[in-house]
Amino acid sequence: MNKVGKSTYKMPCDVFIANTYSIAGPTEGEGSFKDFYDLVLEDDEWGCKTHEKCEIKMHKEVISELLMRENLGEKDIDCIMGGDLLNQIIATSFSAREFETPFIGLYEACSTFGEALSLGAMLIAGGFMSKVVCATSSHYGTAERQYRYPLELGTQATPASQWTVTGAGAVMLTDKCDKDEIVPKITAVTIGKIVDLGINDVNNMGAAMAPAACDTILTHLSDMRLAPDYYDLIITGDLGKFGRSVLTYLCQHEGVDISDRLNDCGALIYSEEQDSVQGGSGAGCSSVVFASYLFKELKNGGYKKILLVPTGALLSKLSSLQGETIPGVAHAVAIEI
Amino acid sequence: MNKVGKSTYKMPCDVFIANTYSIAGPTEGEGSFKDFYDLVLEDDEWGCKTHEKCEIKMHKEVISELLMRENLGEKDIDCIMGGDLLNQIIATSFSAREFETPFIGLYEACSTFGEALSLGAMLIAGGFMSKVVCATSSHYGTAERQYRYPLELGTQATPASQWTVTGAGAVMLTDKCDKDEIVPKITAVTIGKIVDLGINDVNNMGAAMAPAACDTILTHLSDMRLAPDYYDLIITGDLGKFGRSVLTYLCQHEGVDISDRLNDCGALIYSEEQDSVQGGSGAGCSSVVFASYLFKELKNGGYKKILLVPTGALLSKLSSLQGETIPGVAHAVAIEI
Repeated sequence: MNKVGKSTYKMPCDVFIANTYSIAGPTEGEGSFKDFYDLVLEDDEWGCKTHEKCEIKMHKEVISELLMRENLGEKDIDCIMGGDLLNQIIATSFSAREFETPFIGLYEACSTFGEALSLGAMLIAGGFMSKVVCATSSHYGTAERQYRYPLELGTQATPASQWTVTGAGAVMLTDKCDKDEIVPKITAVTIGKIVDLGINDVNNMGAAMAPAACDTILTHLSDMRLAPDYYDLIITGDLGKFGRSVLTYLCQHEGVDISDRLNDCGALIYSEEQDSVQGGSGAGCSSVVFASYLFKELKNGGYKKILLVPTGALLSKLSSLQGETIPGVAHAVAIEI
Repeated sequence: MNKVGKSTYKMPCDVFIANTYSIAGPTEGEGSFKDFYDLVLEDDEWGCKTHEKCEIKMHKEVISELLMRENLGEKDIDCIMGGDLLNQIIATSFSAREFETPFIGLYEACSTFGEALSLGAMLIAGGFMSKVVCATSSHYGTAERQYRYPLELGTQATPASQWTVTGAGAVMLTDKCDKDEIVPKITAVTIGKIVDLGINDVNNMGAAMAPAACDTILTHLSDMRLAPDYYDLIITGDLGKFGRSVLTYLCQHEGVDISDRLNDCGALIYSEEQDSVQGGSGAGCSSVVFASYLFKELKNGGYKKILLVPTGALLSKLSSLQGETIPGVAHAVAIEI
């Protein structure tokens, strides 16, 4: 058995992250990682009639470009795996429709990228698949329309709110890799459980998701018998700046100080000059940051060991209207060179 | 490698379906499988204020009762895996919130049960997990409200339409089983790709999904080098009566006659006297039929080898409003005693 501790799985053989591709929206393209994205859109539509069709196009293009980059055809891939925030994950399924490739659709809100990497790694290391594409996306316009208000209303952002990232990231997981360069590997994954401490403010996702991130990170460290400083970086998906400080506090409260290792893709993605309130969020937040900045930093040795922990808030518009609180979930993926 | 052919995976070791639990709504409880359900609800609310809360309760109870039946605690399970039709799969995530168990959320509409069984089987046979619970649900009231019209309108059913099943089914997959009785095993799975032949009638899901079912079944038989009569029964998820005949025609058109083996959970679930038009549909359709009738028939030897092929239509209300056609997907799960 490859299980260690409560819910961590070590990969019994190599799972390479052979390559990535990232597309960022115009706002993201002016943010902290502007020099790392493979493509930055000039506007939010990209020639499409609706924001939803733009998100589908982004999701499809990151997969197409990734295949081109690796010189692979759609039939060379064992499966495409991923998700997004739209009802019935249409960005994912309508983009996967364009490929003659088996499809596995996932939904865990903004933690879906972690779920995809975890499942993809286990399907490869379990001897089933050789090449898996994991992709997730989000779009400011589609998320605002679906979860909040029409953009035309110009609703003011509340103090704890975050800005949904327009972006998509895709990664190619493989069982073999003969490149003459550093190729990061997924070495272990921790499958998170749902944690709900009763937050019901839909404009404070950071607070809703931080308890799940805390549970998953501490479970991972305990299962693997590691101190936080084993990793150069522990990076959550989209807690934002406020959620990042909640997570630091929660871990300290449990007797583990991760403050000097911790950061968050959402807290980092926009520059200080950009008025993003607490930072970015969305299913594309962790994937676009990983597929651009983090992957390149791993390849050039800037980071040697990172723990990527995409975080998700499992609410719907209806669940909030029916008085429910916001369940959070997070999965941890250990990536090393 | 456990891969055979294009997209079929043989299990390298035993994956047992140790037990199941099923809950059916009142209409389903008067249907063809009324004597097989573990619990039949007396009404569509089950003491809940909304149909959504009733679906969450059903989803939670099938898991709770399954754990009780197997004398297992929530911490004995490696993960709960599943999905439903509601936006952001809230029936699944709000029920999983009640368990201290790692969670993997899936979305492929009504084919989600096949996706869950496939992934669960591979995670077990790959040496990662020992006990996985797979559960899916649907509810007539929640699906009508979300996808169609308020029930109060009394909208007439169109000729090709189906009735969303109120029901939930959960199964326990395990790597070991020491019971003194016949225990079915998952022996192989085929991961389907998305097929969209351009159907855009949202009241004719059978026609939209049949091409994907055809592709997956023929891929499975070809990958495994099997004739259709290897299986006692090839049973799709929720094509309904019309979709079942479309599938028969499509397979014949490809030179494979599966007509004497084929049936469909949706076409069977309601009795002839019940006015369900083309039959049942929904993410709970294949799971509640499998967890009741099919599982019991496998255990008593009525069937020895079945190919279960849950089918899904990956549309959303918005995708149809934006002029999109309906992509279909299906996964095949070979179950043998």
